[in-house]
Amino acid sequence: MDLLSIKDPSFLKQLSNEQLEELAGEIRNFLIENLSATGGHIGPNLGVVELTIALHKSFDSPKDKILWDVGHQSYVHKILTGRADQFDTLRQYKGLCGFPKMIESPHDVWETGHSSTSLSAAMGMAIARDLKKENSHVIPVIGDGALTGGMALEALNHIGHEQKNMIVVLNDNEMSIAPNVGALHNVLGRLRTAGKYQWVKDELEAFLKKIPAVGGKIASTAERLKDSLKYLFVSGMFFEELGFTYLGPIDGHNYDELFENINYAKKIEGPVLLHVITKKGKGFAPAESDTVGTWHGTGPYKTETGDFLKPVNTAPAWSKLVSETVRELAREDERIVAITPAMPVGSKLEGFASEFPDRMFDVGIAEQHAATVAAGLATQNMKPFLAIYSTFLQRAYDQVVHDIARQNLNVFIGIDRAGLVGADGETHQGVFDIAFLRHLPNMVVMMPKDENEGRHMVYTAVKYEDGPIAMRFPRGNGLGVPMDETMKAIPIGTWEVLKEGRDGAILTFGTTIPMAMEAAVQLEKKGYSIKVVNARFIKPLDESMLSELLRINIPILTIEEAVLQGGFGSAVLEFAHDKGYSHAKIDRMGIPDEFIEHGSVNELLKEINMTTEDVVNRMTILTGKKQKRA
Amino acid sequence: MDLLSIKDPSFLKQLSNEQLEELAGEIRNFLIENLSATGGHIGPNLGVVELTIALHKSFDSPKDKILWDVGHQSYVHKILTGRADQFDTLRQYKGLCGFPKMIESPHDVWETGHSSTSLSAAMGMAIARDLKKENSHVIPVIGDGALTGGMALEALNHIGHEQKNMIVVLNDNEMSIAPNVGALHNVLGRLRTAGKYQWVKDELEAFLKKIPAVGGKIASTAERLKDSLKYLFVSGMFFEELGFTYLGPIDGHNYDELFENINYAKKIEGPVLLHVITKKGKGFAPAESDTVGTWHGTGPYKTETGDFLKPVNTAPAWSKLVSETVRELAREDERIVAITPAMPVGSKLEGFASEFPDRMFDVGIAEQHAATVAAGLATQNMKPFLAIYSTFLQRAYDQVVHDIARQNLNVFIGIDRAGLVGADGETHQGVFDIAFLRHLPNMVVMMPKDENEGRHMVYTAVKYEDGPIAMRFPRGNGLGVPMDETMKAIPIGTWEVLKEGRDGAILTFGTTIPMAMEAAVQLEKKGYSIKVVNARFIKPLDESMLSELLRINIPILTIEEAVLQGGFGSAVLEFAHDKGYSHAKIDRMGIPDEFIEHGSVNELLKEINMTTEDVVNRMTILTGKKQKRA
Repeated sequence: MDLLSIKDPSFLKQLSNEQLEELAGEIRNFLIENLSATGGHIGPNLGVVELTIALHKSFDSPKDKILWDVGHQSYVHKILTGRADQFDTLRQYKGLCGFPKMIESPHDVWETGHSSTSLSAAMGMAIARDLKKENSHVIPVIGDGALTGGMALEALNHIGHEQKNMIVVLNDNEMSIAPNVGALHNVLGRLRTAGKYQWVKDELEAFLKKIPAVGGKIASTAERLKDSLKYLFVSGMFFEELGFTYLGPIDGHNYDELFENINYAKKIEGPVLLHVITKKGKGFAPAESDTVGTWHGTGPYKTETGDFLKPVNTAPAWSKLVSETVRELAREDERIVAITPAMPVGSKLEGFASEFPDRMFDVGIAEQHAATVAAGLATQNMKPFLAIYSTFLQRAYDQVVHDIARQNLNVFIGIDRAGLVGADGETHQGVFDIAFLRHLPNMVVMMPKDENEGRHMVYTAVKYEDGPIAMRFPRGNGLGVPMDETMKAIPIGTWEVLKEGRDGAILTFGTTIPMAMEAAVQLEKKGYSIKVVNARFIKPLDESMLSELLRINIPILTIEEAVLQGGFGSAVLEFAHDKGYSHAKIDRMGIPDEFIEHGSVNELLKEINMTTEDVVNRMTILTGKKQKRA
Repeated sequence: MDLLSIKDPSFLKQLSNEQLEELAGEIRNFLIENLSATGGHIGPNLGVVELTIALHKSFDSPKDKILWDVGHQSYVHKILTGRADQFDTLRQYKGLCGFPKMIESPHDVWETGHSSTSLSAAMGMAIARDLKKENSHVIPVIGDGALTGGMALEALNHIGHEQKNMIVVLNDNEMSIAPNVGALHNVLGRLRTAGKYQWVKDELEAFLKKIPAVGGKIASTAERLKDSLKYLFVSGMFFEELGFTYLGPIDGHNYDELFENINYAKKIEGPVLLHVITKKGKGFAPAESDTVGTWHGTGPYKTETGDFLKPVNTAPAWSKLVSETVRELAREDERIVAITPAMPVGSKLEGFASEFPDRMFDVGIAEQHAATVAAGLATQNMKPFLAIYSTFLQRAYDQVVHDIARQNLNVFIGIDRAGLVGADGETHQGVFDIAFLRHLPNMVVMMPKDENEGRHMVYTAVKYEDGPIAMRFPRGNGLGVPMDETMKAIPIGTWEVLKEGRDGAILTFGTTIPMAMEAAVQLEKKGYSIKVVNARFIKPLDESMLSELLRINIPILTIEEAVLQGGFGSAVLEFAHDKGYSHAKIDRMGIPDEFIEHGSVNELLKEINMTTEDVVNRMTILTGKKQKRA
């Protein structure tokens, strides 16, 4: 059928299983074809084609609420709810979002991006439904990886206790983004193979029925045993223990099994856990055979071969540069231990892991735990390297406050994907970390201007013994600069003058430095002499250099690819006023008070008026004789 | 024995069980007596007397590491490690901390205050121990309530997977701070009674041994059944499923049972879960019979009767004022649902709960889940009231960012204990919330000047339909002001002039308003005419009033009982510079860049130079002709 003609999922009700299978094939081809051009989360979506079709055939969305945990597996759902025609714009500026989005469709009842939130949201919806005395199903779909996130476990505990009607679909593909870790994974593993023990249950029950009631004692034993068998052999006792009715494991690519179990689940009172086994990447050989997560989310590729089309950037990738430098230093410092919350591939820790398997811990999707494990290590004079994306560090805020900063422990936080990240959009922009770390006592926060300084900063962080130190670095690649042979420690709280100037100063760091330098060159041509400072320490500031700038009273423009409220520019304002330089002319450029959607980083920067041209204009106004007033 | 003479726990090794029992009695009397004067966490500590003694006798602290989750149950530990002589200063300024504190003793190996961190920290310590090839035990002691916190579950999952040697002591008193909730609680309940099924196991095993091997089939069935019995009847299958060896339940007041199990646990490879049943408040009748948490933490009391000596403040308590106002409004607005993460008593939600049992959800110690349940409710056009302490909201930062603010949902966050809290100290000061909320798009943050305005603000929040709205309010009581009969909505983003003035303006909100008013009176006497503004909206600012102040260019002093970095004063600076008022003289008073320890709020304010006198001095300087320079 023509996928582009789909308006809503109601057409599914009329289709036979054979027709649904045909549809699944068409959707797979559509995804493989379209994503080869746009990139996207191909693996997760190929895995849930039949599951998504089955859910939309069995339930009445949006009256029945289907919530996609994390949300990167919502493409099939988007196709079935009338958005196939927008897939050529997927994850592009003003195009289709890679995650559920309420403004796109009433079928997107919950927006996601970070994992493990769907059960809690579903609980809120179930409570609302019951209070309103409405009659609808709430169906969160959560992966086995997301299930190890603390808040998902908090939710399971609460849902089991409240016994609200809810059908939790556990989409178990035996790996989340990377191969799954954790004891819960082992539980799931045992459940997967539990099917073969079904005969034991049947046999034993038959056997027990034959036992004569001898004085009642054995009979009651047998009764208890039957109770126990329910837990044990129907499997899922972990979930049953928590108050769920467990159904599964179910072949997530078999419509008969899916419909039988979904229909049964609809009739059960209280929460149900539907354990569905799916194959990530199903139907596309390169993705299907992926065991490390390469095909979780990708750029464009060749459909025939699965070769990636991504242009080769010869400059080192930031994640790899940082992780490999840590690895290098770990050879000489046995105290270094790397910790990642389920991002060994994204954080490029494979090399570290293979060289130091005992000193690398993937703790699963468990950012809070990851941060506090690092703190625990630091109490024992170890040097933990917590590799974490900026956006995911948000989830460990309290642990950074209490366990790391308050105890002033030597944890090296490597903040990956800091700043705008592009196609992943709103939920993944790494723009809050400065604002949520800068107000914490004892924290050092820094960002390098290029990969050469990045290596020195890693060295600085490893050698630093006075408390926590965080190094932000962006998504993508370095600038391709020459690399120093030897690493050296950069004195904490020191900035670097990149270009001298008399009429004004630009203070910036990281990715916005090239823009500042280019603007300074253009301003030079216009007759303005502009100083450019690599403000590589966001906390503490280089008070000496900043005091001197304030003393000579030249206008200052701060630039940061991070939120303006409470950010680096605010730190400069605070310092100026604290020191009594209340006449200082300071202007701040950065991310305004709104969530920034998906698009290329350059498109987004343009949208929020952060281009070279903007820098030139604002600096011109700032240095001008006439002061601008609101 | 003389508890004051104890230097370290080594003396315990020589004592017989009888002597230990005597010691336990002495410690109980000491605690009941001392805490009657100072107040403190009496209930939790009376419950762990024997457990703490048994742990310190069985292990070699600090070589063996005992970690106290949350830490309010560490008083016995403090006595046994040589700090009995400091109990008269407990939780007082410069006195003994109510939580573990590394600077107090080498036996305090991990500092706590928020729950559920001990397992993660213990994991870090266990990893460090193994990498260093050291030989020591790591013993986190965690309550049944803290176990429902997401990060504790993340940690159980990881520890079970890694199979590190660790003895997790589950201190199960059947309630945490308030009666415990959640499915996990039910699991523990079943385990508690599991003892009586032990006979079933013995009997069945004997029975199965008698079954003849018929063709091998039944025999193998019997083998499997025996495997299953291990899980089922030795109980603890929940923990066993996660990879722990489960021991228990153990009577936490019986030395024989404690020593037997601890000694057994020491020999087991891999993680052990020692399930210890204790009685909160044991040995002090009023605390022992407490079923709602009144005796969790208290002020001074009479030892004979258990009557509290707390001076009666006739002004309404803030928590109660807010919760009761929400309750009142809930009578007319069926959409209102209250959510608390395990703080129904602290947040004074008992009245709401009794009137609207279906609309009140205590989700357990699960702040992340609580925030996202609220978000889920809001998607369904409900009006969730999330009652949460400022310090605990830190743990839901990512959920506030993503699930509430980003989706711009109508969640009313009641931020209790905002500002300095006093005796609970460092880990409980509610001083970061402005800095971590202000940079979030869509957020409204406000704080009332008194309880009358507080009621209007609750009304404002309930009527607000444009996104999330947070109302901060302090620990303790209101001012005793007259109350309006009818509630009215305060226009969002409007400040209020409390006193007119020409020479300078003080912008402040909440608890610091009386200080500002008093300072203005004193300044008036010195000839300064000072305007005082109730800056009740921290976000959005009253841009109109602030613009006018900047336009007429009078010096501005901002005061906030919150961290200065990225706080309210910074918002004023940002606005001034964004609008081009770069000459504005703005000075900021607030909490400096350090963690603030325990003490009375007044003592703490004095320490950080936030007194009326300081306001007078800084305003005098600010309004002076000569500008101060650093």
